[in-house]
Amino acid sequence: MPRFALKVEYNGLPFAGWQRQADQPTVQGAIEAALAKLEPGEHTIAAAGRTDAGVHATGQVAHCDLAKNWEPFRLMEALNYHLKPDPVAIVDCAEVSDEWHARFSAVERRYLFKLICRRAPLTFDKGTMWRINHALDLDAMQEGANHLLGRHDFTTFRSSICQADSPVRTLDTLDIERSELDNGTLFQFHVRARSFLHNQVRSFVGTLERVGAGAWEPDDVRAALEAKERSACGPVCPPEGLYLAAVTYPVDPFS
Amino acid sequence: MPRFALKVEYNGLPFAGWQRQADQPTVQGAIEAALAKLEPGEHTIAAAGRTDAGVHATGQVAHCDLAKNWEPFRLMEALNYHLKPDPVAIVDCAEVSDEWHARFSAVERRYLFKLICRRAPLTFDKGTMWRINHALDLDAMQEGANHLLGRHDFTTFRSSICQADSPVRTLDTLDIERSELDNGTLFQFHVRARSFLHNQVRSFVGTLERVGAGAWEPDDVRAALEAKERSACGPVCPPEGLYLAAVTYPVDPFS
Repeated sequence: MPRFALKVEYNGLPFAGWQRQADQPTVQGAIEAALAKLEPGEHTIAAAGRTDAGVHATGQVAHCDLAKNWEPFRLMEALNYHLKPDPVAIVDCAEVSDEWHARFSAVERRYLFKLICRRAPLTFDKGTMWRINHALDLDAMQEGANHLLGRHDFTTFRSSICQADSPVRTLDTLDIERSELDNGTLFQFHVRARSFLHNQVRSFVGTLERVGAGAWEPDDVRAALEAKERSACGPVCPPEGLYLAAVTYPVDPFS
Repeated sequence: MPRFALKVEYNGLPFAGWQRQADQPTVQGAIEAALAKLEPGEHTIAAAGRTDAGVHATGQVAHCDLAKNWEPFRLMEALNYHLKPDPVAIVDCAEVSDEWHARFSAVERRYLFKLICRRAPLTFDKGTMWRINHALDLDAMQEGANHLLGRHDFTTFRSSICQADSPVRTLDTLDIERSELDNGTLFQFHVRARSFLHNQVRSFVGTLERVGAGAWEPDDVRAALEAKERSACGPVCPPEGLYLAAVTYPVDPFS
């Protein structure tokens, strides 16, 4: 059976997350239903990251096994046809070998978190950014973020229901970028690691927002990390600003 | 009665345009209904540009007359409270003199048109960009656009139902900017003039898209302009990529 890698973009707002559930709309369920329109029967796809309810993706990667030797471009077009009107789109598609696995072959994940400071409710970006009312200090947030870089026990920054065997991860990037928009100030948190713990990015951003607001000192982030205690974490921020932006493989299947 | 200038942002998708209509949702109607929650009775507001159905704004300007001496920040907050859940937000508010008029005092309007080239349907920006399937040649489009700059009879590029007394306008800017996004190529048309004719920006963009696609030569834009004939225009593009981005006054009321 030929195996295909799919690069997937989705607005997570109407979905109960990536992972298929019997009674709720999910991204996995939507793609599997579209596959069943092309080749009847049950389909099970695997993804690089199982995003939570309300979390988005611009570069999720999944793979599927099909009976037919689809031309990748035609497979992408056919899936997009059947995915409508769900806000899920296949933006790239490639045939891969049988050993290639969207999750286990991945060597890096990149997440983006969008936080906007403005008073007025959002009109264009409802559900796709976290909006807060007050100003934030970029330098203080970046100083706090720098304490998180490298290899650490991230117990403080993972959900109590995280199922990973170890809380140790290596954080390669946590860069915060500020942009002045017409009607607000956007902060984009660019985060990069081989793999992440459950709620790790939202725990980082929620904590760093407290630093940006002046409620925490940048050094308090280091103290929280060193505490290795979930209770030392700042408030976990909401999911709506989070995007799985890219997944890296030893060889890019889409190039 | 104190007069207030309002800077307004809205997603035009659910509205039948700016202008109040008895039986359809409009942006003017939504704001006037919010004003009636603050001061009961009929309200009539005036705007710098009466945008069509499906057209958006990030910097529309309107004014209203109220009985009470509202503190502008509180007025903005109260209006935003009553505008929910409509995708309309007051992003700035200032008291102005009785002679100041959102439409007649304006000396310049800026529009932005967003066109995205990608195969896959849109997930995040449905209804807020014009999506096309094929690639576009930026240099050819800019060369075509340059023929439109300056003072001209724009009969070719105005709707047959345009009510302006004269088809002569002065186009100050038509700059096209290309950005590579994660999953598509975005072209942003930045357009600036003292005032515009009905459907002028959409007539420009629809015509320039034909140049970018190679169906028209850049010089054909000059020939179309010189024809002074509506039938010489390229196809008028859809409204969903158009934004009223800013309105300029001799003195910025919001500064």
